[in-house]
Amino acid sequence: MIKVGIVGGTGYTGVELLRLLAQHPQAEVAVITSRSEAGTAVADMYPNLRGHYDELRFTVPDSQTLGACDVVFFATPHGVAHALAGELLAAGTKVIDLSADFRLQDPVEWAKWYGQPHGAPELLADAVYGLPEVNREKIRQARLIAVPGCYPTATQLGFLPLLEAGVVDAKRLIADCKSGVSGAGRGAAVGSLFSEAGENMKAYAVKGHRHLPEISQGLRLAAGGDIGLTFVPHLTPMIRGIHSTLYATLLDTSVDLQALYEKRYADEPFVDVMPAGSHPETRSVRGANVCRIAVHRPQGGDLAVVLSVIDNLVKGASGQAVQNLNILFGLDERLGLSHAGMLP
Amino acid sequence: MIKVGIVGGTGYTGVELLRLLAQHPQAEVAVITSRSEAGTAVADMYPNLRGHYDELRFTVPDSQTLGACDVVFFATPHGVAHALAGELLAAGTKVIDLSADFRLQDPVEWAKWYGQPHGAPELLADAVYGLPEVNREKIRQARLIAVPGCYPTATQLGFLPLLEAGVVDAKRLIADCKSGVSGAGRGAAVGSLFSEAGENMKAYAVKGHRHLPEISQGLRLAAGGDIGLTFVPHLTPMIRGIHSTLYATLLDTSVDLQALYEKRYADEPFVDVMPAGSHPETRSVRGANVCRIAVHRPQGGDLAVVLSVIDNLVKGASGQAVQNLNILFGLDERLGLSHAGMLP
Amino acid sequence: MIKVGIVGGTGYTGVELLRLLAQHPQAEVAVITSRSEAGTAVADMYPNLRGHYDELRFTVPDSQTLGACDVVFFATPHGVAHALAGELLAAGTKVIDLSADFRLQDPVEWAKWYGQPHGAPELLADAVYGLPEVNREKIRQARLIAVPGCYPTATQLGFLPLLEAGVVDAKRLIADCKSGVSGAGRGAAVGSLFSEAGENMKAYAVKGHRHLPEISQGLRLAAGGDIGLTFVPHLTPMIRGIHSTLYATLLDTSVDLQALYEKRYADEPFVDVMPAGSHPETRSVRGANVCRIAVHRPQGGDLAVVLSVIDNLVKGASGQAVQNLNILFGLDERLGLSHAGMLP
Amino acid sequence: MIKVGIVGGTGYTGVELLRLLAQHPQAEVAVITSRSEAGTAVADMYPNLRGHYDELRFTVPDSQTLGACDVVFFATPHGVAHALAGELLAAGTKVIDLSADFRLQDPVEWAKWYGQPHGAPELLADAVYGLPEVNREKIRQARLIAVPGCYPTATQLGFLPLLEAGVVDAKRLIADCKSGVSGAGRGAAVGSLFSEAGENMKAYAVKGHRHLPEISQGLRLAAGGDIGLTFVPHLTPMIRGIHSTLYATLLDTSVDLQALYEKRYADEPFVDVMPAGSHPETRSVRGANVCRIAVHRPQGGDLAVVLSVIDNLVKGASGQAVQNLNILFGLDERLGLSHAGMLP
Repeated sequence: MIKVGIVGGTGYTGVELLRLLAQHPQAEVAVITSRSEAGTAVADMYPNLRGHYDELRFTVPDSQTLGACDVVFFATPHGVAHALAGELLAAGTKVIDLSADFRLQDPVEWAKWYGQPHGAPELLADAVYGLPEVNREKIRQARLIAVPGCYPTATQLGFLPLLEAGVVDAKRLIADCKSGVSGAGRGAAVGSLFSEAGENMKAYAVKGHRHLPEISQGLRLAAGGDIGLTFVPHLTPMIRGIHSTLYATLLDTSVDLQALYEKRYADEPFVDVMPAGSHPETRSVRGANVCRIAVHRPQGGDLAVVLSVIDNLVKGASGQAVQNLNILFGLDERLGLSHAGMLP
Repeated sequence: MIKVGIVGGTGYTGVELLRLLAQHPQAEVAVITSRSEAGTAVADMYPNLRGHYDELRFTVPDSQTLGACDVVFFATPHGVAHALAGELLAAGTKVIDLSADFRLQDPVEWAKWYGQPHGAPELLADAVYGLPEVNREKIRQARLIAVPGCYPTATQLGFLPLLEAGVVDAKRLIADCKSGVSGAGRGAAVGSLFSEAGENMKAYAVKGHRHLPEISQGLRLAAGGDIGLTFVPHLTPMIRGIHSTLYATLLDTSVDLQALYEKRYADEPFVDVMPAGSHPETRSVRGANVCRIAVHRPQGGDLAVVLSVIDNLVKGASGQAVQNLNILFGLDERLGLSHAGMLP
Repeated sequence: MIKVGIVGGTGYTGVELLRLLAQHPQAEVAVITSRSEAGTAVADMYPNLRGHYDELRFTVPDSQTLGACDVVFFATPHGVAHALAGELLAAGTKVIDLSADFRLQDPVEWAKWYGQPHGAPELLADAVYGLPEVNREKIRQARLIAVPGCYPTATQLGFLPLLEAGVVDAKRLIADCKSGVSGAGRGAAVGSLFSEAGENMKAYAVKGHRHLPEISQGLRLAAGGDIGLTFVPHLTPMIRGIHSTLYATLLDTSVDLQALYEKRYADEPFVDVMPAGSHPETRSVRGANVCRIAVHRPQGGDLAVVLSVIDNLVKGASGQAVQNLNILFGLDERLGLSHAGMLP
Repeated sequence: MIKVGIVGGTGYTGVELLRLLAQHPQAEVAVITSRSEAGTAVADMYPNLRGHYDELRFTVPDSQTLGACDVVFFATPHGVAHALAGELLAAGTKVIDLSADFRLQDPVEWAKWYGQPHGAPELLADAVYGLPEVNREKIRQARLIAVPGCYPTATQLGFLPLLEAGVVDAKRLIADCKSGVSGAGRGAAVGSLFSEAGENMKAYAVKGHRHLPEISQGLRLAAGGDIGLTFVPHLTPMIRGIHSTLYATLLDTSVDLQALYEKRYADEPFVDVMPAGSHPETRSVRGANVCRIAVHRPQGGDLAVVLSVIDNLVKGASGQAVQNLNILFGLDERLGLSHAGMLP
């Protein structure tokens, strides 16, 4: 059994990690920390977990206890993993960070978008961006994984085949993305209230969202050069789900897009290229670690329209973190992640 | 492997059966029938099942193919199981009926509430009401199981300890119940439209709902005599979930209600008595085969208030059906049903 | 034009007052105060009001400016009106308080439920409970109005005919009430988040809710003696709406309930008794100052079941406040309140 | 008083027309027709209208009765207005058609998208496209108005300033649009069920949607030449609201977009250009006849991003129809339409 620690397990990615790990046959949560909830039983805070973690209580984070784990997940706001990861790595514990702390390779850019200096630039060389569809081999060897963000997962998986194949104008990419409200976390913010976010649709952060540099970094690597991306996130009245609608101009309209996507993801257990003409629904991946993609060329024009959906808390966070765990420990990548989405 | 057939798998209890059975280690869906969708791949209709049932297609119901199964689930409107169950039973196939066809022991009462004659009164003697918390031993021996309805499951489990212990006035029971919209099924009805049921709350069928005689039948057995029940169902703007709020007048206010409930359900794997003072939430059981119950005595009066929640599609239908399957075939009752609810 | 001041206009009852007063032909909002938002334009905070209040900005509360108004509404948390009302009344300004400060006649009971001493017991003799269907004449003469709470409005209007007529057992009343999330206000609380309250149903405060003594006080007056009430509030995943389902035991089942209700409310402009057998929907009163009621006697038994719906922000708060304004200033009671509910 | 007839008033645009006309001081609904509901009182079908139309019943459509009206609204599926409009116009009755029947000037294109021959090509010369912000003068003189569709209203109003000014590449326009479920109407379709459309986001009709030719026709006129448009509609889990996110490549990045929009709509009573940097929310226009627009240029690039929101049933249908009525009859354009949106 892999001994798992979780730092900061009171948020939505934390409870989702617990839900997924409860059905994982090779992993066991030994420690979960929260300063604010120290002493509280996990199942008192999250009654869906009653009967699954009846002994587990939040504790004050302590590097010795955490360092005794085989792996520690960070399900924390940014900045926390910066402070603790180094010590854990030194103790031989692997780190899977769900926060944004190690996603950007450039600490200067990180500082610009997150409004504070990067707290652990010396670890960046070790950090592997945990998108298995791109970095599976590196993940296998890694000791520090930066789990991609939710928008970045859906958007990169949607754009990758086009950019890797070099069939689109990489300078004029558009990602019009729609997210459920759980993407904003469990913090008590007015904008996330039921009475504010319900029965409502709005764009936000059009000027610039923190996921923009993360997506751009990944797309540059895929394109092998500069890219230009306009990213417009929207808040949608649903709890879970991300729908990325992606637009790219084809350099050559004779390319068989359907074949391109099917080939690119043929061996991927968690990317599902739907039949031509499909419209993936976010509910089809609710609770499941899957990205479903469909690719269109409306009216036979030169614009490729890619539809890419994930559950932001699963393939966009905790499920992908478990997928990384499986790769990291040489397990079947699907362990604990093979259940179907919940529909309706 | 238990060879499973499903009749009428296009509705919500059908897709939920498929979702649950996909993770069941001892059961395999061999046949699924639907006249209207014959030929369609299950995963084309329900894309959440892509990757889980890629070979399975709906077929026209055929008693020979179904009769070759070890067990057949009926996820059909009422009347269908009446017509087919006898033949399957004769072929030695066990039947687990999720419809209302065999829930009422009295065929005359059935005819009154369902507006048509009972189609198989000769099978009623064989039919076991599949509420494991009451009938586990009978289920073990049965060949025809009538899976309880959603309201009846939440409501009976909530009232049982009080009635079995004889501590309340059985003649003045009130069940104020709230259901998510999936309880109305996948039929295209105006009242179930998003724009009709969303942002709205209403009672319905106050004059009399088909689940009233079913609940009353179970409560009579628990009370060992006549009971009086007022049942008011409400439609709530959520997809899944039933919340039964139950009112009963205590004959003796000195009874320790918390202890009574904890003792009654101490050995039940799927009934969770919450700590005193709790308010169970439907989302805590979303997707899970659990009934969570809390019992209150507001202002120290003589009225017991019981809060009982289930997921109508799981413990209120397909999950309970799989629980019956497990009992029927001598398996661990929790097989395929041990995952946690999905929250948020 | 009646010169109106609003204290504490940043919450939901505040914005709803502004929405309703924008279409009121005889009232004009001269001042609106908020310490936290002083300087902010009302229409910047609430963009639905753009074009309606383009000059109006929140200001720091100031008793001189407020005292220059003909009437001041308090849309504040409890305690604020206690502190300010006396001064305004002394200045000859009428006060319509939407908070709970003057709803309970007994300051000791107020202190018990609100956890702090009553701040203005000397004003209680002047305070009129602003339920026009009961106190219209007193309201006409009043200078200090306590606008009823949302649950109390729906519940009292539902029970009144039965209690006034003395046809039910007043000692065994049950109110099973369902509220939309806006009833919890615009405060940033975890429990009111979209991801917490969405797709979920739960009871809360079963042990005792602050609206219990308010409802009981009104029912006692209607019954002309002691009453016993069990009140169980529930949180429902919709923004607006209250649905009270009321249970009362008839002393005499020969009473014509439909006639009783129709007669009681025959002259009421904002209480709509629906035809026998109806199920009122909360959406039918969305945005409108109406209470719709239907009365049932299921299975011809001795239990009356009353269904009563309002929009918690209109007839349950700001609309009722405007109705009180109209009465207080001798206007047509329907002024500014005659629009239909918004459906769908 | 203007004598109004409504053909086909049982759908959502019908009930919304009734809601809006109930508060219109110069119009009176004399006739409302529905074959299927003939005899039913309007207020029985739509209880939000109780107290507003207590005498009005649906009747079988009859050209004589309709021809006695000053104006007849069609709130019907396509094809119906084709059949009846001619006769009414001949009787001197004005026609305001909310359906798609007269929106496309080219009957061949209409036939292609609607799958049937155009039923009244001889009336096309008389039909005026009822977008007041473009055709106010023509509307004033018209006798047959084709009220624009919901997507077309939000999308055209968003693109117009750019195209009229010639500052963008008209050949590469993208409209990523999100609609609430009421846009699909009140027909009982599985895809519009609460349990299907709730907690879900999906694109649909990417291959081609009927609103595409309508939008293109309007944009061509604005651009004064050919345009290229990719239009991707999405279904969003809310009842009302359209959010169009529009992308256009600027030919000259020095243009002051904010000034361009403010100037274009300076005199428009129902188009609200929000301050630079804003993100309009659909709820800010819920129930109101307003289109709110904000314009962005993310990262200072050459892509203009326009956010345009309406209530699909008001400015996207019935409210715009009333606005046309006001213009047609020489009334203040805002009559009956001046109320604020309902938030929350």
